[in-house]
Amino acid sequence: MGKIAAMDLGGTNIKLGLFEEEYPAQLIWQGSIPALSQEGILRALNAAAEELRANLPVGSEIRGLGIGMPGIVDIRRNRLCSVNAKFADAVSFDFSTWCRRTFSCELAMDNDANAALLGESTWGAGSGWRNIALMTLGTGIGTAAIMDGRLLRGTHYQAGNMGGHFVADPWGPLCTCGNRGCLESLAGSREIEKRLPTLSGYTKSRMGRDGRTDMKALIEACQAGDAFANREFDRLMSLYAAGIINLIHAYDPELVILSGGIMQSAPVILPELQARVWKYAWTPWGQVEFAVATHPNESVLYGVYTLFKEQKI
Amino acid sequence: MGKIAAMDLGGTNIKLGLFEEEYPAQLIWQGSIPALSQEGILRALNAAAEELRANLPVGSEIRGLGIGMPGIVDIRRNRLCSVNAKFADAVSFDFSTWCRRTFSCELAMDNDANAALLGESTWGAGSGWRNIALMTLGTGIGTAAIMDGRLLRGTHYQAGNMGGHFVADPWGPLCTCGNRGCLESLAGSREIEKRLPTLSGYTKSRMGRDGRTDMKALIEACQAGDAFANREFDRLMSLYAAGIINLIHAYDPELVILSGGIMQSAPVILPELQARVWKYAWTPWGQVEFAVATHPNESVLYGVYTLFKEQKI
Repeated sequence: MGKIAAMDLGGTNIKLGLFEEEYPAQLIWQGSIPALSQEGILRALNAAAEELRANLPVGSEIRGLGIGMPGIVDIRRNRLCSVNAKFADAVSFDFSTWCRRTFSCELAMDNDANAALLGESTWGAGSGWRNIALMTLGTGIGTAAIMDGRLLRGTHYQAGNMGGHFVADPWGPLCTCGNRGCLESLAGSREIEKRLPTLSGYTKSRMGRDGRTDMKALIEACQAGDAFANREFDRLMSLYAAGIINLIHAYDPELVILSGGIMQSAPVILPELQARVWKYAWTPWGQVEFAVATHPNESVLYGVYTLFKEQKI
Repeated sequence: MGKIAAMDLGGTNIKLGLFEEEYPAQLIWQGSIPALSQEGILRALNAAAEELRANLPVGSEIRGLGIGMPGIVDIRRNRLCSVNAKFADAVSFDFSTWCRRTFSCELAMDNDANAALLGESTWGAGSGWRNIALMTLGTGIGTAAIMDGRLLRGTHYQAGNMGGHFVADPWGPLCTCGNRGCLESLAGSREIEKRLPTLSGYTKSRMGRDGRTDMKALIEACQAGDAFANREFDRLMSLYAAGIINLIHAYDPELVILSGGIMQSAPVILPELQARVWKYAWTPWGQVEFAVATHPNESVLYGVYTLFKEQKI
């Protein structure tokens, strides 16, 4: 029986999945291995392949592979054009040849935010919508856009994916990309965790007393009435809302899908963001709808499966 | 002999043009009347029609009309969906019926930045390029994008046109659109002129001594070594560069065309912007080219002529 394998190459973990070859998407197994991104792309891919093979049902074979990863991906040549911080040696790595040698099958690959949006639009929260923007709020901030039913790509495969590097403060902190004040440098969770302990109110705040810097602790402290936490929470919501408004102004979507680790706190965050965006986005036709990803942990896997099926059929 | 009439409805003036009906574009007359935007769209259009008729060569007739104007334009229904400050009563005005009654001909209309980009891409600086972003730096800040040879429009005709309302500082000044810190609210020339006299260094600066607040005076003061002017110039260049980087990150163009009143100082401004954008934009494929509009005052006229020809043939 044919299966399609899927990989989501994240900075910390590589998520893996096996799908039935035939539509509709059926995820029959999923797992995860550490990313080992410091040890190079080849070791990471080989470890992922080994894990996939170990979990392939007896009598099955892998008939195709989909890979989603951060960075700018040339989907025609299956090359990574540029990446920020993670998997640096993956740039110009020949993924197609590796895939044929390893699995004797074809490969489809894409930027992970594109893949997440393709997965959600085909099998999740975006089903039935033709104009969608996606934002993943996590360590980094990833974005993608579907306009008139098609993923926006751009002539160098960059369009739609750079929303985390829209400048939200020209005099803001230095970003890992080299620019200043990118949304990611102001509001990515890695930056939040670095920023909080440097602030004067932190040590006396509830978060400081607990030695915590994560979004969950921030929200708990807010709900306990901690003034420091409320101020920081308000700042973050303004930044996320600005990022979402910029996506709306750039791509004119009817639906915004939010995903990523920070959305584990969606019940608190979503109403805050909706209220700000609905108040300030310039959308004379009505209000953009909001949705949280249906498969927050698997949408990239669903997406690269779908990409493979669409490219190869 | 058939002519196509063109109108560029600006906040201060309405620019007018008459083109030969047949390709290639030949602008045989151009003129301008005050916008009278406070007196309503109907009076403004009627005054424009009168001026066009008065300048129509003997024996000619107007076979088509193109209108470019600020705001969000539904190009299929020829309606203005939303506008900011200028021509407020033009929203939902029936331009097509007015055009048929006035000129007994069909109408094509579009957002003015879209029209400027269409004009420049067909008859000017963008000729031969398939991926272009345009930014007009003037009283307001307008933007438009061509991707893979086609104007980006979006499902509600907003995509590409809102670059002046990308948030460049979530805690910035209130914008005329109701949001805070839009690029236009930080760096539009109307805002610059309001801002400069409020700054503590202004009265003692060369600009303050001359009682001036315009970009030309700012640049002259910079070149005379005025520290206040240099600080403000640097701030503006950072803001414009951030706005251009956001356009590049949103639409993945190969060429950026700059236009608008502020670009009358292009010899000073362009090298500054290029240097900043080339340093900070994330474009691993190479460097975005820059061009100044070939027809800075007529590109909207050329654009609506072209739009009419493309829609009606």
